[in-house]
Amino acid sequence: MITRQGLMLVLSSPSGAGKTSIARAVLNRDTGITMSVSATTRPRRPGETEGKDYYFVDDQKFKMDVNNGLFLEYARVFDHHYGTPLGPVQKLLSSGRDVLFDIDWQGTQQIKEKARDDLVSVFVLPPSTAELEKRLIKRAQDSAEVVAGRMARAADELSHYPEYDYIIVNYDLVQSIDAVHTILKAERLRRSRQAGLTEFVKQLREGG
Amino acid sequence: MITRQGLMLVLSSPSGAGKTSIARAVLNRDTGITMSVSATTRPRRPGETEGKDYYFVDDQKFKMDVNNGLFLEYARVFDHHYGTPLGPVQKLLSSGRDVLFDIDWQGTQQIKEKARDDLVSVFVLPPSTAELEKRLIKRAQDSAEVVAGRMARAADELSHYPEYDYIIVNYDLVQSIDAVHTILKAERLRRSRQAGLTEFVKQLREGG
Repeated sequence: MITRQGLMLVLSSPSGAGKTSIARAVLNRDTGITMSVSATTRPRRPGETEGKDYYFVDDQKFKMDVNNGLFLEYARVFDHHYGTPLGPVQKLLSSGRDVLFDIDWQGTQQIKEKARDDLVSVFVLPPSTAELEKRLIKRAQDSAEVVAGRMARAADELSHYPEYDYIIVNYDLVQSIDAVHTILKAERLRRSRQAGLTEFVKQLREGG
Repeated sequence: MITRQGLMLVLSSPSGAGKTSIARAVLNRDTGITMSVSATTRPRRPGETEGKDYYFVDDQKFKMDVNNGLFLEYARVFDHHYGTPLGPVQKLLSSGRDVLFDIDWQGTQQIKEKARDDLVSVFVLPPSTAELEKRLIKRAQDSAEVVAGRMARAADELSHYPEYDYIIVNYDLVQSIDAVHTILKAERLRRSRQAGLTEFVKQLREGG
């Protein structure tokens, strides 16, 4: 029987390029892939659920897990720590499920060092700077200052596209969702991800 | 502007696993990919068109082209020579078109040595030996001896699946056609196949 080892699909992009909308749509469309849940030391906000939005932990627990190598990747953002716990991801992968990561280039690099073969990385580019700015401004809750800061970080994030396997220019959201889903479906067909092939072909050759 | 360098999609399988039906369907469905045309020294049969079914050449011309390195791959089958001329393939690839090859593991190896980066290789497995035999027998023009010979060669061809990037088990023809088309569409999105990205991202970063 041919079974499958799950893969890790990483989506990165400058903020505002459409990555989160794409991720959400792919998760809705394909029941074989699950969103990775991060651990964080920031306080839980109203409406957030433990284990669904985040694993909420304190500083001490976070640092202990970092020291014990229990994170696939982690980072400090302003005053808080964020990281991807290794355990739940490994459990999903070994049960043949794929895991989706919405992380930046630094997180991607960390995962790459730990699990190159299981990783499929996609970088989403905005179609133009004007379009990127328009999308960032659309978010009513962001101040002009936040938008300007994001534009500057976007320029930095953009410079890391050469570290990714696939590039999608997000001219059209529906087409970009299709593109990411197509990459996911194709990567599942890689020989290296199909377990039991040796036995299957042995049976074919022996007349099974 | 982002343009694309074409890719070479190789389909291999034991005879009777469904490779030719899959190839035909993918060519019908996707106008961006063209079937590679082989050169051969065997005589033209009624109904065959020069440059469409084959390039018909004599032994002397074939040997000269081999010596001049003008074949991407070539082989002798019984008394005749077959080979893939390099020129037409290069022309298609550089105009951004993809090229489909219906060749065996030996041809695939030869292409791989010459153009690893442009090559995407797919191996089609039959779902069972019984099914493979049934499909080979279905071809009314084949004698029992030919079928037995093909079964033996199939077992040999099967042993080469580990040399391929992707594996498809042909349980269902429609699904297998989808699978090959999905692989083709995903591979087109690889960063390495998109030319002009450096310039495109430069413009994005500079506010273009």
